[in-house]
Amino acid sequence: MTGIVEFWFDFSSPYGYFASHRIDAIAETAGRTAVWKPFMLGATFQLTGARPLSTVPLKGSYSLHDWDRLGRYYGVPWTLPDPFPIATLAAARVYYWLAERDAAAAKRFAKACFHAYFGEGQTIEPMDAVAAIAESLGISGDEAAAAARAPEWKAALKTVGEKAVSKGVCGSPFVIVDGEGFWGDDRLVMVAEWLLRGGW
Amino acid sequence: MTGIVEFWFDFSSPYGYFASHRIDAIAETAGRTAVWKPFMLGATFQLTGARPLSTVPLKGSYSLHDWDRLGRYYGVPWTLPDPFPIATLAAARVYYWLAERDAAAAKRFAKACFHAYFGEGQTIEPMDAVAAIAESLGISGDEAAAAARAPEWKAALKTVGEKAVSKGVCGSPFVIVDGEGFWGDDRLVMVAEWLLRGGW
Repeated sequence: MTGIVEFWFDFSSPYGYFASHRIDAIAETAGRTAVWKPFMLGATFQLTGARPLSTVPLKGSYSLHDWDRLGRYYGVPWTLPDPFPIATLAAARVYYWLAERDAAAAKRFAKACFHAYFGEGQTIEPMDAVAAIAESLGISGDEAAAAARAPEWKAALKTVGEKAVSKGVCGSPFVIVDGEGFWGDDRLVMVAEWLLRGGW
Repeated sequence: MTGIVEFWFDFSSPYGYFASHRIDAIAETAGRTAVWKPFMLGATFQLTGARPLSTVPLKGSYSLHDWDRLGRYYGVPWTLPDPFPIATLAAARVYYWLAERDAAAAKRFAKACFHAYFGEGQTIEPMDAVAAIAESLGISGDEAAAAARAPEWKAALKTVGEKAVSKGVCGSPFVIVDGEGFWGDDRLVMVAEWLLRGGW
């Protein structure tokens, strides 16, 4: 099989964070490349009627416990940030601005955003926090901030959200392989198997 | 480790159906017994604000596709029944009536209900359908129907639902091992690992 592995996520999604540590290796094992596609999960929530998981009775306390447990299970740093969840427009817009110039730099930036937020518990909502992450990677913070404010990248992110909905992306993370969608961090095992077996 | 493995599910839950094929073997591999605990997922929905998955935009079409794919993946018979979802009060009450007398017979009955509904696409909502399943297992259909109508078993099922909520059961299937909850069919892999490693 050929083609990319689409990795859809929201920077404010814990399950997206956990999946981000494994998706590249899973794609590469199958000779594929994972293309990261941050989007605003809130747009999906408007359609599905979902609310942020941590605010839902029963599911909220379950997920808080589950995230701690997954951090230990996967051996990745995990902190519940405060505030949580947040709108991650700035990070996502900067990501797409970078991706157009340098896909590898964009992915490094995305990983740094995820690590800052869920690994270290530092908010990535304000523009200056996102600019500081860009600076730490040798990217101009001023240019990053300008991109996050530019109508062009605001429109680009909006289009990404519409694309997500049109492709049936119903949560974060959501992986698409040859048109086949898999929702949830715990489905990455199945994604790997689908890639190796060529489906079933 | 000792203790049972609690397997919470709704008879109208496709993911509960898929999990029902593996939970006993997972428990037995770890020297444990899975105790099946059907409950009314609707009671949980009232708290979580969830709706039946198949009726939710985006998630609905995803799940219909996912169930077909899981049927092929696990190699178990799968049919989307019509009507779906249904209220499975009668099946659950008969289950608890049977379980008090004969746990093995109750589990056989539960498996037969799941198979009739999702394996063959036959509704198990009406009392006579549930009584017929009981009859097919050598259990008196009249006695089963009487149990499903008895105030005692109505109250018992209500208590089960309250217990589910008090234990944090937030969906179907939901597995509890030594106080540790795991939500979803795709978490059975982790349940198996938890049992063998004794947690992490």
